[in-house]
Amino acid sequence: MRSAFNEELDLISEQLVQMSRLSATALQRATRSLMETDLGLAQEVISDDQLIDALRRELDNRAIDVLARQQPVATDLRQMVTALRMSSDLERSGDLARHVAKLTRLRYPGHALPEQLRAIFAEMATTAEAMILRAGDIIGSKDPDGAAELMKADDTMDRLHREVFQSLLDPSWSQSTQVTVDATLLSRYYERYADHAVSVALRVVYLVTGVWHDEQLPGDDERFASRVPREG
Amino acid sequence: MRSAFNEELDLISEQLVQMSRLSATALQRATRSLMETDLGLAQEVISDDQLIDALRRELDNRAIDVLARQQPVATDLRQMVTALRMSSDLERSGDLARHVAKLTRLRYPGHALPEQLRAIFAEMATTAEAMILRAGDIIGSKDPDGAAELMKADDTMDRLHREVFQSLLDPSWSQSTQVTVDATLLSRYYERYADHAVSVALRVVYLVTGVWHDEQLPGDDERFASRVPREG
Repeated sequence: MRSAFNEELDLISEQLVQMSRLSATALQRATRSLMETDLGLAQEVISDDQLIDALRRELDNRAIDVLARQQPVATDLRQMVTALRMSSDLERSGDLARHVAKLTRLRYPGHALPEQLRAIFAEMATTAEAMILRAGDIIGSKDPDGAAELMKADDTMDRLHREVFQSLLDPSWSQSTQVTVDATLLSRYYERYADHAVSVALRVVYLVTGVWHDEQLPGDDERFASRVPREG
Repeated sequence: MRSAFNEELDLISEQLVQMSRLSATALQRATRSLMETDLGLAQEVISDDQLIDALRRELDNRAIDVLARQQPVATDLRQMVTALRMSSDLERSGDLARHVAKLTRLRYPGHALPEQLRAIFAEMATTAEAMILRAGDIIGSKDPDGAAELMKADDTMDRLHREVFQSLLDPSWSQSTQVTVDATLLSRYYERYADHAVSVALRVVYLVTGVWHDEQLPGDDERFASRVPREG
């Protein structure tokens, strides 16, 4: 009984890893569509998000089915509930990649992102993508040590997010309000994407060690803005 | 056995309703701190968010405990998993209220929100608060009809969110970039808050009717920006 449950759990883990890869690909393509103002690619990212959503639904149904058939003990249940939470995180990260593609489409044939911000956003995208892949590895390996590395990558992400605000608030910033609003939202999307990667990693740490670090859970982008001197 | 499970489920429902009320209070107080530049109140909202987080943890533990003891059938499991998802939504709505309070604190003794945007944000706050309370009612009553009303309130929310962008993009807008960035983030916070209320309501509809409306799940604020003419 225990062993059958563990096999099911492995299958669910594999699906979570698969979701993390699909999400990474979505972000990579969304970023390319943003940088290269590629409408076709943006459309593909938007419609492909359904695949991640479908995978989550399938995973949820399987998890509920397993719970009903296997009558697992409390520890197993905690694992299953955590898996369901991870699938929510990963689905949401996919949504955020879709948001980037949607903003690209919305501004087409114009550029959603001005030249001067492209280098920062390229680094944000690479960092975020690596983070979600790392989160997938951590799910697969159940190695909580990997989480520390991921938190370090999140510090990089925070620095980049701060740099975006610094650029927007620099006296030399001369872009339209529309560009300012779009850049604020885009920066928030990438930062939230990274938050979901951290959240997945922390859930694995919790499963393995039993310790939950509430205070580590991200989502406050004001803390970055706070390091930026007030303007005007 | 079934009946014991239903009693536990009722208790969990009650806790979800309680979470929705705490979240509504948090948003109301956060908005007041924002409007009145009240640092003390902002601090209280920030620290009180722990109560909602604690309630979610308690609810999660109880749900897992119930699942382990009662060995429920598939339908019951689906209800429990949905309850866990609702607790995530409600916790996250509390986080968004905290974000509003944090931005207030960050700009203190300055005002995070300029005079000219206060009326729109006051309406956003009232709408969002009513929506989360309505979501709580829907959980309590299991009446899916209430969801339609909530979706209508979400249309109001969308209109207000659009109005914020229109104000920012109006040629008469003469505020600093910092104010533009803050208003963009604040508008996103209220809009996401409302999204979580809608999400809770849709989950109840799903439980009662078995129908899940993926396309109704919100979270795309670009769609509003799209109705705003491009600037510059």
